[in-house]
Amino acid sequence: MALPKKKLQGLVAATLTPMTENGEINFSVIGRYVDYLVKDQGVKNIFVNGTTGEGLSLSVSERRQVAAEWVAQGKNKLDQVVIHVGALSLKESQELARHAAEIGADGIAVIAPFFFKSQNKDALISFLKEVAAAAPALPFYYYHIPALTGVKIRAEELLDGIQDKIPTFQGLKFTDTDLLDFGQCVDQNHQRQFALLFGVDEQLLSALIMGASGAVGSTYNYLGKKTNQMLEAFEKKDFTTALNYQFCIQRFINYVIKLGFGVSQTKAIMTLVSGIPMGPPRLPLQKATQEFTANAEAKLKSLDFLGPKKGT
Amino acid sequence: MALPKKKLQGLVAATLTPMTENGEINFSVIGRYVDYLVKDQGVKNIFVNGTTGEGLSLSVSERRQVAAEWVAQGKNKLDQVVIHVGALSLKESQELARHAAEIGADGIAVIAPFFFKSQNKDALISFLKEVAAAAPALPFYYYHIPALTGVKIRAEELLDGIQDKIPTFQGLKFTDTDLLDFGQCVDQNHQRQFALLFGVDEQLLSALIMGASGAVGSTYNYLGKKTNQMLEAFEKKDFTTALNYQFCIQRFINYVIKLGFGVSQTKAIMTLVSGIPMGPPRLPLQKATQEFTANAEAKLKSLDFLGPKKGT
Amino acid sequence: MALPKKKLQGLVAATLTPMTENGEINFSVIGRYVDYLVKDQGVKNIFVNGTTGEGLSLSVSERRQVAAEWVAQGKNKLDQVVIHVGALSLKESQELARHAAEIGADGIAVIAPFFFKSQNKDALISFLKEVAAAAPALPFYYYHIPALTGVKIRAEELLDGIQDKIPTFQGLKFTDTDLLDFGQCVDQNHQRQFALLFGVDEQLLSALIMGASGAVGSTYNYLGKKTNQMLEAFEKKDFTTALNYQFCIQRFINYVIKLGFGVSQTKAIMTLVSGIPMGPPRLPLQKATQEFTANAEAKLKSLDFLGPKKGT
Amino acid sequence: MALPKKKLQGLVAATLTPMTENGEINFSVIGRYVDYLVKDQGVKNIFVNGTTGEGLSLSVSERRQVAAEWVAQGKNKLDQVVIHVGALSLKESQELARHAAEIGADGIAVIAPFFFKSQNKDALISFLKEVAAAAPALPFYYYHIPALTGVKIRAEELLDGIQDKIPTFQGLKFTDTDLLDFGQCVDQNHQRQFALLFGVDEQLLSALIMGASGAVGSTYNYLGKKTNQMLEAFEKKDFTTALNYQFCIQRFINYVIKLGFGVSQTKAIMTLVSGIPMGPPRLPLQKATQEFTANAEAKLKSLDFLGPKKGT
Repeated sequence: MALPKKKLQGLVAATLTPMTENGEINFSVIGRYVDYLVKDQGVKNIFVNGTTGEGLSLSVSERRQVAAEWVAQGKNKLDQVVIHVGALSLKESQELARHAAEIGADGIAVIAPFFFKSQNKDALISFLKEVAAAAPALPFYYYHIPALTGVKIRAEELLDGIQDKIPTFQGLKFTDTDLLDFGQCVDQNHQRQFALLFGVDEQLLSALIMGASGAVGSTYNYLGKKTNQMLEAFEKKDFTTALNYQFCIQRFINYVIKLGFGVSQTKAIMTLVSGIPMGPPRLPLQKATQEFTANAEAKLKSLDFLGPKKGT
Repeated sequence: MALPKKKLQGLVAATLTPMTENGEINFSVIGRYVDYLVKDQGVKNIFVNGTTGEGLSLSVSERRQVAAEWVAQGKNKLDQVVIHVGALSLKESQELARHAAEIGADGIAVIAPFFFKSQNKDALISFLKEVAAAAPALPFYYYHIPALTGVKIRAEELLDGIQDKIPTFQGLKFTDTDLLDFGQCVDQNHQRQFALLFGVDEQLLSALIMGASGAVGSTYNYLGKKTNQMLEAFEKKDFTTALNYQFCIQRFINYVIKLGFGVSQTKAIMTLVSGIPMGPPRLPLQKATQEFTANAEAKLKSLDFLGPKKGT
Repeated sequence: MALPKKKLQGLVAATLTPMTENGEINFSVIGRYVDYLVKDQGVKNIFVNGTTGEGLSLSVSERRQVAAEWVAQGKNKLDQVVIHVGALSLKESQELARHAAEIGADGIAVIAPFFFKSQNKDALISFLKEVAAAAPALPFYYYHIPALTGVKIRAEELLDGIQDKIPTFQGLKFTDTDLLDFGQCVDQNHQRQFALLFGVDEQLLSALIMGASGAVGSTYNYLGKKTNQMLEAFEKKDFTTALNYQFCIQRFINYVIKLGFGVSQTKAIMTLVSGIPMGPPRLPLQKATQEFTANAEAKLKSLDFLGPKKGT
Repeated sequence: MALPKKKLQGLVAATLTPMTENGEINFSVIGRYVDYLVKDQGVKNIFVNGTTGEGLSLSVSERRQVAAEWVAQGKNKLDQVVIHVGALSLKESQELARHAAEIGADGIAVIAPFFFKSQNKDALISFLKEVAAAAPALPFYYYHIPALTGVKIRAEELLDGIQDKIPTFQGLKFTDTDLLDFGQCVDQNHQRQFALLFGVDEQLLSALIMGASGAVGSTYNYLGKKTNQMLEAFEKKDFTTALNYQFCIQRFINYVIKLGFGVSQTKAIMTLVSGIPMGPPRLPLQKATQEFTANAEAKLKSLDFLGPKKGT
């Protein structure tokens, strides 16, 4: 087994799943979406069927189709396509992992099951191991998001135990603000080539200084370019500039959080910024209000986040 | 549409899903399980693929097979077989609802989606309505369990809105200790024939006096007979006796809760009491320890909850 | 030590602390308040300086004065005056306990400290024991209210350990809906003369059938008479009538909970119903809005909870 | 009013309150404690009677005495002595604020009340304003620690409203990992001379890059020197060195957190490192176990955090 071609790093967009107005998946715009990410946002890695992609709201069959389409459209354009295959049912997660391997994805990611929660680290690792084993040639990433799953096992402890059990383990998406936990993931694994990707977009800078090797997030769909500029300033040790970019991004996120911000609103913003119709979310999510969209647009303009002209 | 043949009432066992030691579903013992519930426990209604049945840990395909087997085996033996068809994906929930209708189940139940949570009452009712519409001839029950789903919308408010939108609505499983909410469900709907089933086994008596029309729970698999005796005493207004039964049941549940009590442990206890092998749970749950089983057995004996001889 | 003259039972009003418009304690109306409770509501026991009385928002000096005034005014009119002496500081709690003994109160009650939380049962019992020892001749009650304190130690486990350590222990105020825990408090202590008082007014009936010996609550200030009628019906085993009273009370509480219900609102309602001015609450609480008061009044009228004429 | 002599910055030690074995305050070692902080740890600012100092476990009288002793002993040695005067009772908080002014403290800090929680931003600001007004010549700091208080009002929103209402407002202690909120506090107030002090010691570096002007914490009692080295490396833009210091500190904190880490354990560690006896904590806290102390000592040694020789 040769893992992986190269380490996953830089920005990874957590893709939205475009839908038609009547709630079916709108496969037709995925090609355009790929081009937009690469050309307009400078983002060449994607994370498909995660929280942002409403992965858990799709049927297994839909998840397969969505994954296949992103892999097909991304060919020769994207660097890496990681498929989130987490599910409440181990069997379904395994099926999705096998499928990701078949279609030639670059990796799989798995969230901790969160209806029945793992009672301890060993139970969680056992679950993840069974999924990973279904795609033995694919890099495996753990998707750590305790605020959504309620699973409180620290990532650092998990990494400590995961490496022997899951040979394909290649890193994690760390979606939490506990930078002791994240820092210790970095500190304890600095001799390994793990991708330690931060998942709280609005405070990415705080994780960069702690050693993050990249980031996965929904805002990189439409703020990828701005965030890449922050990454470049950070690389050059120009912290004043980096912080200015971070604050600018925070102003936007801070604003929309107060309005109520989630996947529904991200779909509205992405439609606005990219000109590609993302459509409504699926129930139990509900479409963002027109009032939200109008306010978000005004804020984007005031921050100069909308380019001079956007396609439609 | 003629709904329903009769109101669901009395005890409803939330069935376990028997598994083999290697984690596959053990369909072969379901027939015996039906007989045990009817003959040994006096329980003639079941709730399939719910929390106790690890419904959300099964694949959609497995959920269909399990549902079909219970309906088939229960024919002419059970009064009502309700299938839990809740899922994170609306599409899968709808598929399961259609299937429940095809196999001739007596009703469907749906939990609130809990990864993306409904932002308000209307969003939740819209979701439930879409599921119910997939099985327009089947009684529809809402499965209210806020401690597991994190969905805090009060049942009373939901019922207030659900009746116009979901004509097949027939009641709810109320798994919470908020008896203001439950009481108001009863109070506000006393002129309708809804089944208002309580789901916290260890304090059923407190809900009976508030007007519960029945109960759904995991302990009725092995404490159905004892609980039926409590119901009878309550019906006769013999509250001293009813309370004695309730306290006796509480002593057992209180004891196992301190040891750590969940579906894994329920499988071990049911195996012990019924003699029918329930097997291990599926990951991320892990098999109950031998120490738990030994302690639970000793407690059952001390409370005289094990009959003189049990089959193997 | 002769403990206690008699067991605390029936309804116990958690008294409000009347204040003037500029936020000082209005001692002048406490005599009238006593008469109102006894004559209009038929309530002869009180719980002073608890949550409803804003005890923790008062200075130690104010708590002493308030306690002394209630004891003085209640002389020969009230049956028992229990003073809540819980505080974050053990020293202050001890001072208040000594003072309660000096003024001739009938008992003291203590909440679990909740800034630093007790790490286990032993730590909590050690704390309570030190307070109780400061008033060695007074009955001691534990005030169990996990939703406010965040202390999750079960009451049943506490009672199991508290009896050896605190000889003055006489019971608890159980303000939670976990009737397994409450039921086991009753079941395990049926041979002792503990007062097991329920503290969730809106579902008192559910605790009565589980063996509650009384109730402490804020609504008994103005719904004492109605609640006493429920108690009487329950005593006579007239459950239909008891449930009707409970539902009627629930309709009011359910209504005000939706409007936002707390101590501020209780002050407004009590002023309305009794005609005795309760004044505003102390910061960080803020006075109930006029809109709330108008809505609450309309609801009280519609439920016939306001007598034909009230004093001003 | 001339506020303040100079901006509070750099490290601020949240002091422990030394106690004798029988639980009384050990005033006799405070002078030595001051010298230790200044000479051995290079820390010249202190935060007295906060969480670390068990401020809320002390009586008002004790809090006054402790505050007075630190001010007296710190004279001509410490730069700034800030007294935490937060309390559940507004009256007591005001008394402590007046006292802090009388003894010549350099500032006061106030935590949000957390038994009754502020229903909104205005209620909280009103409370804080009343406290601040009792010491109109002292710099006022808000102590933001939502994990302990349960008060979820964002600091950024509070600062937005606090400046008009509280003219003495000089900054906040931000004890949370939400660096969007903290970042926006910095971003929105960069033209003012507020002290924006971070309070999560184990990830201070992440806040420095977001613009923190200093830090308040318990570990600066014994890791002040190491942390000052990190601050110096950060100032020089030597991020590799800064991160090495941060990781080293994290290794220790990460280790003790797994053993169970709080004020009790901090007292044991400080006694160990400084040689000054801190004594036990006050109930409901319990003394750290000998096992903890032995493990912590071994870890400190392995990380070279104990100097070659320490006084006794």
